[in-house]
Amino acid sequence: MRDNSGGAGYGDDFPIAAFATIPGSSALTLIRCSGKGAVEAVSSVFAPEKIKNAPGNTVIHGWIILAGEKVDEVLVSIFRAPKSYTGEDSLDICCHGGACAGKAVMDTLKSAGFRDALPGEFTFRAFMNGKLDLTKAESVMELVSAKTETGRRHAAARLSGSLLAEIDEIKKLLVQVLSGAEIYLDYSEDEIGADADTDADVLDEAAGRLPGRDIALSALERLKKLSASWQIERIYQEGITVVIAGRPNAGKSSLFNSLLKEDRSIVTEIPGTTRDWIEAWVSIDGIPVRLVDTAGLRESADSVEKIGVDRSRKLLQEADIVLYLIDGALGVTAEDRDFINGLEASPPFFVLWNKCDISPLPQSFEFAANSHICVSAKTGEGLERLYAAISSAIQGQAAQQAVAQQAVLQGVPVTAAIGTERQKNLTDAACSALEEALALAEQEEPLDIIAPLLREAVNSLGEITGEVSTADILEEMFGRFCVGK
Amino acid sequence: MRDNSGGAGYGDDFPIAAFATIPGSSALTLIRCSGKGAVEAVSSVFAPEKIKNAPGNTVIHGWIILAGEKVDEVLVSIFRAPKSYTGEDSLDICCHGGACAGKAVMDTLKSAGFRDALPGEFTFRAFMNGKLDLTKAESVMELVSAKTETGRRHAAARLSGSLLAEIDEIKKLLVQVLSGAEIYLDYSEDEIGADADTDADVLDEAAGRLPGRDIALSALERLKKLSASWQIERIYQEGITVVIAGRPNAGKSSLFNSLLKEDRSIVTEIPGTTRDWIEAWVSIDGIPVRLVDTAGLRESADSVEKIGVDRSRKLLQEADIVLYLIDGALGVTAEDRDFINGLEASPPFFVLWNKCDISPLPQSFEFAANSHICVSAKTGEGLERLYAAISSAIQGQAAQQAVAQQAVLQGVPVTAAIGTERQKNLTDAACSALEEALALAEQEEPLDIIAPLLREAVNSLGEITGEVSTADILEEMFGRFCVGK
Repeated sequence: MRDNSGGAGYGDDFPIAAFATIPGSSALTLIRCSGKGAVEAVSSVFAPEKIKNAPGNTVIHGWIILAGEKVDEVLVSIFRAPKSYTGEDSLDICCHGGACAGKAVMDTLKSAGFRDALPGEFTFRAFMNGKLDLTKAESVMELVSAKTETGRRHAAARLSGSLLAEIDEIKKLLVQVLSGAEIYLDYSEDEIGADADTDADVLDEAAGRLPGRDIALSALERLKKLSASWQIERIYQEGITVVIAGRPNAGKSSLFNSLLKEDRSIVTEIPGTTRDWIEAWVSIDGIPVRLVDTAGLRESADSVEKIGVDRSRKLLQEADIVLYLIDGALGVTAEDRDFINGLEASPPFFVLWNKCDISPLPQSFEFAANSHICVSAKTGEGLERLYAAISSAIQGQAAQQAVAQQAVLQGVPVTAAIGTERQKNLTDAACSALEEALALAEQEEPLDIIAPLLREAVNSLGEITGEVSTADILEEMFGRFCVGK
Repeated sequence: MRDNSGGAGYGDDFPIAAFATIPGSSALTLIRCSGKGAVEAVSSVFAPEKIKNAPGNTVIHGWIILAGEKVDEVLVSIFRAPKSYTGEDSLDICCHGGACAGKAVMDTLKSAGFRDALPGEFTFRAFMNGKLDLTKAESVMELVSAKTETGRRHAAARLSGSLLAEIDEIKKLLVQVLSGAEIYLDYSEDEIGADADTDADVLDEAAGRLPGRDIALSALERLKKLSASWQIERIYQEGITVVIAGRPNAGKSSLFNSLLKEDRSIVTEIPGTTRDWIEAWVSIDGIPVRLVDTAGLRESADSVEKIGVDRSRKLLQEADIVLYLIDGALGVTAEDRDFINGLEASPPFFVLWNKCDISPLPQSFEFAANSHICVSAKTGEGLERLYAAISSAIQGQAAQQAVAQQAVLQGVPVTAAIGTERQKNLTDAACSALEEALALAEQEEPLDIIAPLLREAVNSLGEITGEVSTADILEEMFGRFCVGK
């Protein structure tokens, strides 16, 4: 029973099951099942009479029963192929929440013939069964991992097909250019001459330069806009890391908690048992900020292994902004100076004079005025100033990238933006191929050198959406042929 | 829109909504909606055409749309009153997972007229609408918070009605006794004499002692068995706390992680931002053990406030077993001795000589052989011995309580066990009242003093299941009356 998943892989239609929600202290837990024979398999442990003839999109109430023992009282939603997320027979089983009920039901399902689903396997099956294209499939993951409302909105737009539509339109333009060029290649000059009446457009443009060059140029412009959109999208998706550093007892944890209390907290990640630091995501103007508290890193680490120090160094390398806390009650120590001087080649940082409620900043403070802020994690003094400083530093970083692209982005709806690195790379590949094609055309190179580059650009776009990359080129091309030819 | 919940309370039928799963990095998030007008409210933001005429127990696919913007692609299950969990019109909305999608849908629902559900409000409504009794209602919460498979099985048995059945049977016995007594009180001696033919049983037992005394005694025995079941049930539900203590760098975190790696981990709780310790639940022979790592407590706490020390003290007070780690590389220090000596009046503890892979235990080790164990959190040496020691200590504690009740419990199905403190208190109240009634009967006190005590016992049992506590007494009593009387 434990070995159901042995040797299984993407691409089969074996019945699979997975938790679709986080098991834990919640009212309910949702288990998703899909695959050939999934309904029959569930019927062996749940209301066989009711389930077998149940139409799709209906919900049945009852008990999961294993070997006569009632395991859990559940709701089972049935979806019949092809009207389901995956396109296969599927079931959503809504069990009780908590650590044990869902697990007991999952164990029962495995004994009934299900195997654990592989990561993304439901969506993979949905794609294979033509339920969605790759941009929508990827947007499902973007939606789930969105950290701010802005990120969610962009992902939802892609899920509703905004990127797919833009890619399809650009591809249509390129296919138009390509098919024009390939028709030309298919005919000898004589044949074209003979068909002059019907192929006038092709003839006109066939004087050594690329037919449909203007169309290609407009496609290139739209591809560049798409590509540029990723710079901002990535920040919205991945966010920015702000690390709180400082000597033991400088008040790092208190500052961390105070910043979270500002009601900008999105979600607190689980430190788990393998990490010694705590982090949480907060939203600053729609941009996700990963706030990392290194408290406990040096202090609790095993002094023999020095793991803490290594981890601390790694976290600082990941930081986009560093907040260095000085214990105002003790003043600046040699250790503080070493740390801050060591940061010089690093990301933007702010020196925070903490505990300013009991220890005012010395008159001749040694760090630059624009990079230090007085705060009291205890009373909340100065936190608004700190917050504004972080915000403007992020804006600054985002702006650097945004300025260059602002002009480029003009006129492109924000919803038609790139959502993944994969899409960005393929968009860039399409751009390069198209630019090369246009450059060759400029040099009046023959079409049989240019056409493969155009086809490469089209294929890259086809890869973005996941279509079979040549079928549509052929269709478009033959569609422009005369009937019977 | 934010103020929908203002002034609301249990008992109305306003449309309510709540997350039924934990929002976070999961594929899906489930939002539960219920109340008068719930379907209409959802139809204002979701597929109005499809939803309005949808029959109950059907699932509709579509987009939640707010002011023209697509918020999320969801599945909505519709349940029509009274065929739903609450007995009201209800909807389960299955949104995408993650921190933002569910929240955006929830915000949309609130703008459509829902208010946040109060804790347990769905089940409260289910109870008020007669969908389940109080023992089942409570078992839902027990199921969700079950920490081990054993705990889950016991809760599932109660949900399927095992405790309800036992309470009902016992109550039936008491009602029989009570109605016998009350019939006697209702009639003058003359009347009973006149009806001698039909009321022979009552007459026979009406010679100054309690009618149906044997029935009352058997009810009392069953009540006592039920009451005793709580001692073990509570351990299965609440578990036992094992605290890992020791000086900084003794290896507490490493030991904690090693014990979790033993594959007995059930669920890791979120340390959150207000706690500085880490804890996890592990299952030892079906008993949930809360393992607490105090690492970081003294070390990372603000030295001014000494919060860490206070918390450490509190955790130790909660401990059922303490594991005190000694850094084998340093040997026993004065601080170690102070701590261990301070523990003498405390729960069972084990002195662990850590890092035994590099530092063997001194020949003349100062702590008792039966309370010390050599371990290496790093190599895993000695962990099996430690695990066995914890296990037998728990068994010992459980056994102390179990021995006394083993005889009592004999013959009672384990499934008919008490599930909550409330049930236990009411069972005990019923016991006391019944015992007092029997004692008075023994002293041949008049029935009009004894009957109210019997009624009190019945009422206590009625409170356990949540019935209106006098209706059934009346029914039973009048049901034994002759028709037309």
